[in-house]
Amino acid sequence: MKALRFEKSRLNLAEIAKPNKENEALVRVIKSGICNTDVEIVRGYANFQGTIGHEFVGVVEESKDLPELVGKRVVGEINAGCDVCKLCLKGDSRHCPNRTVLGIKGRDGAHAEFLNLPSANLLEVPETISDEEAVFVEPLAAAFGITEQVEIFPDTRVAIIGDGKLGNLCAQSLALKSRNVSLIGKHREKLSLVEKRNIEGVLLTDALKLEKQFDIAVEASGADSGFNLALNLLKPHGKLVLKSTFHGTPRWEAWRVVVDEITIVGSRCGRFAPALELLRQKQIDVESLISEEFSLSKGVEAMQKAEQKGVMKVLLTIMN
Amino acid sequence: MKALRFEKSRLNLAEIAKPNKENEALVRVIKSGICNTDVEIVRGYANFQGTIGHEFVGVVEESKDLPELVGKRVVGEINAGCDVCKLCLKGDSRHCPNRTVLGIKGRDGAHAEFLNLPSANLLEVPETISDEEAVFVEPLAAAFGITEQVEIFPDTRVAIIGDGKLGNLCAQSLALKSRNVSLIGKHREKLSLVEKRNIEGVLLTDALKLEKQFDIAVEASGADSGFNLALNLLKPHGKLVLKSTFHGTPRWEAWRVVVDEITIVGSRCGRFAPALELLRQKQIDVESLISEEFSLSKGVEAMQKAEQKGVMKVLLTIMN
Repeated sequence: MKALRFEKSRLNLAEIAKPNKENEALVRVIKSGICNTDVEIVRGYANFQGTIGHEFVGVVEESKDLPELVGKRVVGEINAGCDVCKLCLKGDSRHCPNRTVLGIKGRDGAHAEFLNLPSANLLEVPETISDEEAVFVEPLAAAFGITEQVEIFPDTRVAIIGDGKLGNLCAQSLALKSRNVSLIGKHREKLSLVEKRNIEGVLLTDALKLEKQFDIAVEASGADSGFNLALNLLKPHGKLVLKSTFHGTPRWEAWRVVVDEITIVGSRCGRFAPALELLRQKQIDVESLISEEFSLSKGVEAMQKAEQKGVMKVLLTIMN
Repeated sequence: MKALRFEKSRLNLAEIAKPNKENEALVRVIKSGICNTDVEIVRGYANFQGTIGHEFVGVVEESKDLPELVGKRVVGEINAGCDVCKLCLKGDSRHCPNRTVLGIKGRDGAHAEFLNLPSANLLEVPETISDEEAVFVEPLAAAFGITEQVEIFPDTRVAIIGDGKLGNLCAQSLALKSRNVSLIGKHREKLSLVEKRNIEGVLLTDALKLEKQFDIAVEASGADSGFNLALNLLKPHGKLVLKSTFHGTPRWEAWRVVVDEITIVGSRCGRFAPALELLRQKQIDVESLISEEFSLSKGVEAMQKAEQKGVMKVLLTIMN
């Protein structure tokens, strides 16, 4: 089968054997989405070698333990735990120290014709959700997961820093809880995507005036300067949600966190079921985030596109 | 009156006028305690000029608005808000942007024969609490305040980093909630102070083996390395309490906070009433922390003593 692989420091479209883990489900991939993490893996982050990609929708072709899934259209939780450690036994395989992660850690990913995942990781996609929408379940789950980590009320004042895909999904997710959400970014046209959803778009240059005005600030830009801006925006007792996995080692004024009794919350991934439900209810607009679709055979080109400035989500169409 | 002052980059014992704010209480200081913050002020932190000191016990000599306090032995909350901003109106004068802080910000402090504080800041000290104990209410309130910020259960595994005064009080405070508290430090003799209180003392060199074993880690050492050790000790979903106001701008691996979904909680001060109650019930041993007492006239010498390695709390006796 065809697979978009990162091997020996090189991205290429390879012809490899179909995955065949007997104790896992076999999924034929319909569409996959390119995430910034894919781009970062190709830059050498995480030392991952293999098929990249972790956002997908597909059809189950085989599942020994859950045969009722065969033929169903599914999305899948990307972390697979060891099933025996304390964290897995508590149901938290997302933090299992021996976990594998689809297309990120120890497990081939979704930019391929087929993939394996434990059957228990798969969730059926309701008919009314399109393939294009379903591909967004993973990043939407990550964005909406914030609402399970920090309490947000209708009058909670929330700032999201970064007007890319992740910031957009965070803004839309948190606007379901609060009437006072501002998305801060550098691009007028990206900010305008959320403005019809009752979210205020604020240009970065204007955000500097908003010191100490927010209860919650979500860092979704991946830049050190985003982290420091988030600190500046928070009221005393405010909460800074660190959402994007940035790889620098930022300097920060730790004393400010103490004096203002700020809480910093690291946030990685979220549960899929609530995200699927949001898409079913058409509460989140994901289609306006799609910049372009490519076929898998043009996967290398698609990755180049995804790296360009101003580009939002790039999808791969794998099965027509 | 005599006062220990930091002025024009110099610490000296000065003769100044008695404080005379008409709308505040006048307190005659019995004893005061030297805090690391005092030492840091003398090193130039906070740009404070004036009488230093914020840990004290005293007797009320005048109080127009609460005359029933006159003659009472009291301790006092050190933050005085503006009374008109949103935070003050919500009862959170500790974060008022216009607040003054006793001996730290815009307000003369406690290493003096007399001080002013709003009467509402004062709490009467029960008879069974000695002067020496009462001086510890402020730092104990700060330590015990952690229990109001993070949930601690009997089996919560807690590490406190730093075996100085603050670390000691944090360890004793959290050991009232959890059976699994470890105090980590460099000094065998300081660790032994808490071991009789069901707290495990762990030498720093041994702590490096305890990676990912703790639910909560309290940074009370003031060192960048303490912050990074705290991160290493935490399990996924763990909480790092940043307790000491250190003034560096530490570098940190922000991605680890995201991947392990760590929460960092900035923690400054706490409520006095619960701390007073703990002292009344003799639940915290503070007297073993006292290294030496000096008279106010030897205040400069006392400050030099407080800076020495291995010294814990230095007290000033002001009224006999």
